[in-house]
Amino acid sequence: MNAETVRADGRHARELRNISLESGVNKYADGSAMIRLGDTVVYCTASIENRVPPFLRGYGSGWVSAEYSMLPRATQDRNQRDIRRGMPSGRSSEIQRLIGRSMRAAVHLGSIGERTVLLDCDVLQAAGGTRTASVTAAFVCLVDALRKIASADGLKGLPLAAHVAAVSVGLVEGSILLDLSYEEDKIAEADCNVVMTGSGDFVEVQCTGEKSPFSRKSLDCMLSLAQTGLETIFSAQREALRLSEAEARLFDSLNSRAEHGY
Amino acid sequence: MNAETVRADGRHARELRNISLESGVNKYADGSAMIRLGDTVVYCTASIENRVPPFLRGYGSGWVSAEYSMLPRATQDRNQRDIRRGMPSGRSSEIQRLIGRSMRAAVHLGSIGERTVLLDCDVLQAAGGTRTASVTAAFVCLVDALRKIASADGLKGLPLAAHVAAVSVGLVEGSILLDLSYEEDKIAEADCNVVMTGSGDFVEVQCTGEKSPFSRKSLDCMLSLAQTGLETIFSAQREALRLSEAEARLFDSLNSRAEHGY
Amino acid sequence: MNAETVRADGRHARELRNISLESGVNKYADGSAMIRLGDTVVYCTASIENRVPPFLRGYGSGWVSAEYSMLPRATQDRNQRDIRRGMPSGRSSEIQRLIGRSMRAAVHLGSIGERTVLLDCDVLQAAGGTRTASVTAAFVCLVDALRKIASADGLKGLPLAAHVAAVSVGLVEGSILLDLSYEEDKIAEADCNVVMTGSGDFVEVQCTGEKSPFSRKSLDCMLSLAQTGLETIFSAQREALRLSEAEARLFDSLNSRAEHGY
Amino acid sequence: MNAETVRADGRHARELRNISLESGVNKYADGSAMIRLGDTVVYCTASIENRVPPFLRGYGSGWVSAEYSMLPRATQDRNQRDIRRGMPSGRSSEIQRLIGRSMRAAVHLGSIGERTVLLDCDVLQAAGGTRTASVTAAFVCLVDALRKIASADGLKGLPLAAHVAAVSVGLVEGSILLDLSYEEDKIAEADCNVVMTGSGDFVEVQCTGEKSPFSRKSLDCMLSLAQTGLETIFSAQREALRLSEAEARLFDSLNSRAEHGY
Amino acid sequence: MNAETVRADGRHARELRNISLESGVNKYADGSAMIRLGDTVVYCTASIENRVPPFLRGYGSGWVSAEYSMLPRATQDRNQRDIRRGMPSGRSSEIQRLIGRSMRAAVHLGSIGERTVLLDCDVLQAAGGTRTASVTAAFVCLVDALRKIASADGLKGLPLAAHVAAVSVGLVEGSILLDLSYEEDKIAEADCNVVMTGSGDFVEVQCTGEKSPFSRKSLDCMLSLAQTGLETIFSAQREALRLSEAEARLFDSLNSRAEHGY
Amino acid sequence: MNAETVRADGRHARELRNISLESGVNKYADGSAMIRLGDTVVYCTASIENRVPPFLRGYGSGWVSAEYSMLPRATQDRNQRDIRRGMPSGRSSEIQRLIGRSMRAAVHLGSIGERTVLLDCDVLQAAGGTRTASVTAAFVCLVDALRKIASADGLKGLPLAAHVAAVSVGLVEGSILLDLSYEEDKIAEADCNVVMTGSGDFVEVQCTGEKSPFSRKSLDCMLSLAQTGLETIFSAQREALRLSEAEARLFDSLNSRAEHGY
Repeated sequence: MNAETVRADGRHARELRNISLESGVNKYADGSAMIRLGDTVVYCTASIENRVPPFLRGYGSGWVSAEYSMLPRATQDRNQRDIRRGMPSGRSSEIQRLIGRSMRAAVHLGSIGERTVLLDCDVLQAAGGTRTASVTAAFVCLVDALRKIASADGLKGLPLAAHVAAVSVGLVEGSILLDLSYEEDKIAEADCNVVMTGSGDFVEVQCTGEKSPFSRKSLDCMLSLAQTGLETIFSAQREALRLSEAEARLFDSLNSRAEHGY
Repeated sequence: MNAETVRADGRHARELRNISLESGVNKYADGSAMIRLGDTVVYCTASIENRVPPFLRGYGSGWVSAEYSMLPRATQDRNQRDIRRGMPSGRSSEIQRLIGRSMRAAVHLGSIGERTVLLDCDVLQAAGGTRTASVTAAFVCLVDALRKIASADGLKGLPLAAHVAAVSVGLVEGSILLDLSYEEDKIAEADCNVVMTGSGDFVEVQCTGEKSPFSRKSLDCMLSLAQTGLETIFSAQREALRLSEAEARLFDSLNSRAEHGY
Repeated sequence: MNAETVRADGRHARELRNISLESGVNKYADGSAMIRLGDTVVYCTASIENRVPPFLRGYGSGWVSAEYSMLPRATQDRNQRDIRRGMPSGRSSEIQRLIGRSMRAAVHLGSIGERTVLLDCDVLQAAGGTRTASVTAAFVCLVDALRKIASADGLKGLPLAAHVAAVSVGLVEGSILLDLSYEEDKIAEADCNVVMTGSGDFVEVQCTGEKSPFSRKSLDCMLSLAQTGLETIFSAQREALRLSEAEARLFDSLNSRAEHGY
Repeated sequence: MNAETVRADGRHARELRNISLESGVNKYADGSAMIRLGDTVVYCTASIENRVPPFLRGYGSGWVSAEYSMLPRATQDRNQRDIRRGMPSGRSSEIQRLIGRSMRAAVHLGSIGERTVLLDCDVLQAAGGTRTASVTAAFVCLVDALRKIASADGLKGLPLAAHVAAVSVGLVEGSILLDLSYEEDKIAEADCNVVMTGSGDFVEVQCTGEKSPFSRKSLDCMLSLAQTGLETIFSAQREALRLSEAEARLFDSLNSRAEHGY
Repeated sequence: MNAETVRADGRHARELRNISLESGVNKYADGSAMIRLGDTVVYCTASIENRVPPFLRGYGSGWVSAEYSMLPRATQDRNQRDIRRGMPSGRSSEIQRLIGRSMRAAVHLGSIGERTVLLDCDVLQAAGGTRTASVTAAFVCLVDALRKIASADGLKGLPLAAHVAAVSVGLVEGSILLDLSYEEDKIAEADCNVVMTGSGDFVEVQCTGEKSPFSRKSLDCMLSLAQTGLETIFSAQREALRLSEAEARLFDSLNSRAEHGY
Repeated sequence: MNAETVRADGRHARELRNISLESGVNKYADGSAMIRLGDTVVYCTASIENRVPPFLRGYGSGWVSAEYSMLPRATQDRNQRDIRRGMPSGRSSEIQRLIGRSMRAAVHLGSIGERTVLLDCDVLQAAGGTRTASVTAAFVCLVDALRKIASADGLKGLPLAAHVAAVSVGLVEGSILLDLSYEEDKIAEADCNVVMTGSGDFVEVQCTGEKSPFSRKSLDCMLSLAQTGLETIFSAQREALRLSEAEARLFDSLNSRAEHGY
């Protein structure tokens, strides 16, 4: 890995694309955010529903789930809408399950009552990294929804278990690169989507070497780079959330807790 | 009708909501626009496809069609995605057929070859008037797509048959109002969606008096008000399109042609 | 417009096709009718269900909705059934929403309890004007269903708000024609579907100039012709319904009430 | 079995309900018929399509298939349309496969070219025996379609392999009855749908004793009664078809051919 | 019919393929069995559910139903999964309805409470006779499920109404053959699926002569051969079920009851 | 991690469940295998199709994809079939994409012509680890299919790029365990599905800490344990494949190639 590598878009190997994360973009939702990561644009909303999936009913605990979709012209070539094809996309299913798991890791589900927070991530423009951008933006929406729940239920603080964000890394033509663009992703030997907490633990690691298997050493480097790159993203989330002092203290405490063993 | 009526949002009876119409919002599409009409927000793209529906194959002529959908949280309460319900929404079907017909009226289909221009209108926020806002924004995308086709085929000018836009009017608590907000729409005795050309002809008139039938006189007033209100919208479209001089002359000519008989 | 125009099927411009409207064609339904308008044949039934859509539950009020479909060989070429295509037809969705709105305008929904009257319109042969013929026949079925409800609930009279029927008019090769046949409809410059009440008000006006925009003057003429043409249809409905004296008085009163302002 | 049994509707055990079989009921179809068997009403059409299913392509041979459906209010209680339930009915699948097999047995598939004759059977009113009534009416439509094919291809005669009709029989409260009504069918111990040729052979025998198994002796009696009852139905078909002399001779010959061995 | 016929696989006309019927193949199900009949392999499970279909609710009685499906590569050429085609197969619908009816005939539905026994038959390899093999194996699963219900409810014996199994017979190149292989089935002039009880009555007879109608005499021979062939199958079921003494007495009594009249 | 941990099923922490891997279980498929891993049972087949997905047409290269499904009673409680729910399961989509990617990593796609090898993995019994067991069994089917292709095309050797297998590891109550059973999986703090090559590289790493984020140290231990555990599985695959001498040399060479850099 050579941090000096200059990439097609002028970035260095360890450099994130420009990130912009705006919250409050939807007047009806219980939380909303628009993330722009280079040319990737995702529109997210949170909706609080007063019910939980059947397998949870009657336990007093809540749930968080996600749906992910792309507008037809989010991509170079237009894609048919799911309802026209008559089937949800397998790729979307895979991604929304990842977002859902990541967001559940961020919440004390036992403290939100029998509610579901449903996170909708709709991609307006797909230029690489839509699933990690979705996780990052969904977290912002989620916190807004938790504020509403905390306020409605008179909770002392946010029922937040972790500060969660995601980023992609990959091995492209022999270099380990942060935050792959669409062009890099297409030719990557391996790519990882890494969801982490602010305290440095992993929520989800998905690394794929479909075009060519990757070594343990490559994996180690990719994970380290992901962790470094997430710092900027954690900051962008905090900024978009305009944390109150109490909330800032909660985030600080979540992110500094002593490393757990396994 | 009393032009002095002051409405819940402070508007007069004959006053449009703030309109913002931005083109070029999507880097992949063959035309794109985001329209904001008060709190209503619609994201539109045009996609040129090198094929036509089966019934048109081999005739050398083109086609224009539209798809309309709402993001799940475009509305006060979250709506399930079509693919979850397993069925396209009847309302969406009705609306996208209206948009498609309106856009076909704007194009010389015989001059675009065996291509389809597909207009996708996705509602990010629905606060009344989404179908007419979609028509208005779709026209901007369409012109951009026609520019591409004209350039690819070396046409002398845009294969444009009419300058088309739309607006809603309604009868609310006895007053004829322009551009109904969601709150007004809900309680309207009658409402009309009017699609017109810049030359003052109608492309489509859809008036409904589900809650209470309406008189011929009401209809006449509503149609007149629609025509007046559309002037601002036609201007907003021209501005968003940044017309070249030749294009401006084409628009002028389309909009001033002598009234045809019937 | 020239009333002397002789059309391909020998009719004058202002002449309706032969209409036959037979009620009581189904022994199970709560109302049923078969309409023949020239070669167009539609089979309608009304079904009373003791439930309302979710958004109405608990308000004590009722609902009316419609479903429209064509048998596979209603048309020149056979159409695949919806269930084979895996999707309801967009055209059917549009039409059944029109029928539903028109029928709701005919009923005092507050007086029928938490019931839904569901009107099924199935086209056996489609030779132009199926949607307006459906509205006309559905009204007959609806009144039969209201008789059952009035009798079951001991109401003093039919909970009827308006006498409703529909007809098509169009602009064909420069002439304004009543009740377009399939062949005329295919080549029409503009066509209108007009749903009116016996008292001369509009329930729904849908005019489309997809092939060529139409002037305000054309619209005015088409609406006037529709109103004239509907007189025969209103009579056919009354006859098919074999009104009791009390019912005939109700219809008379609905149809002569003083014009409302707007 | 007691031929003297008087049934709820006044029939004797071996008596068919009133049958009316009208052909030419649809102006577009390549064959059409409406059958009324007591209160059961089925509307059938034949459509000739110039293609065959994939597994037959290139063999020069044709195909016959069927689709069966019930209008929503064909029954005592309204049934949801297939497209609303999102799934074809299992019962309809079973029945349309029976109709398809029966009709294929009636045709020299090798003599109709690479065409499919598609038979649509839509039940307007279901009062018992809809599947056998459908077979009977479908045969009439099929012959009409074969006339068209024979004429188009200059065939010497109809490419007909057998004269086919169907009837139901059942064991009801210990009596063997012909042509079960809906009320009888509901309580039958066993019921058979029998499809036969005019020459006395079987095309399909479907006997079910879901409520109570039935003996070989019962089966024998039911089959004999079916054969007797079919005579009236074969006549009704010939009458509805208004056979030419040459056709009548073909039918006579098909129906009198020497019994084949097995 | 000539019992000496030697078939492609070396069998005589009246000879069954090798049958192996193993129960207890699934640790979760309430009954399970794997049947191998020559190269045909079907995997069956029974699931007890504490609910009944809507039309049975509140009557205190139970229900039995079945689902049948083939794995994609059960056949020579791979078949698309139902969910990919977006539609259940018509053939599967027909077969699972047959299995369901046959199994309901085997149970005293009034004695199992408001429960449904759902039988899943999944074909791993399809080499002819999958529907009859499914009935045979489903019966074994069903008895296991009834044992569970009898034990849970403290019933004195199994709520079994009949011992049920099935076999196919056919007319192939002029010979009546037992248990058709896939190759024989493809070329059969006629084929029957016969579901019988151990006492010699019929539960279901489905005979089809699509390629060529069959005589009454052929039918008689086929039914007789089916009855003979079922003896081996009834034995295989008893063995797979490892009947207790009390159960064996019940089976003996079910199978020897005096012939009922009709 | 304590290798001495004794688990509920008596295994040590680093111990695999009993594995049985049988090939040639389906007579029609181009490759087939049944894997039993403890109580988990998966039935896999390979089907060679002479076409590739649209995006690959005309490039001369092949494709490998997978479908994964569970029989309804593979689990403790019965699951509805996909076609009944009207939607593929999101979980199945996620898993079959993982299997497909893993198998593509094993093949020289450029050497198999424009063919698709489709791997069907159907779970008969699900007791933990079905996705990794599917990968392991699918590889065996894949090699069988490649043998057919190599033979048909006269290739010199198998177009195999890697020897691929998979195993699960997890963190359960503070212990790192190999090959989680269903009971362990349910309560795991974190679990990983690891797909590796025989040469020690990763094809896919999917680690999830939905219930509780996991440290880098835990991840490292889990990955190391996976690699150790896979040795037994690689051997079981070789045995099931009954490698020829030439094939064995190919496997040896694939598995010993020098570690690549990144």
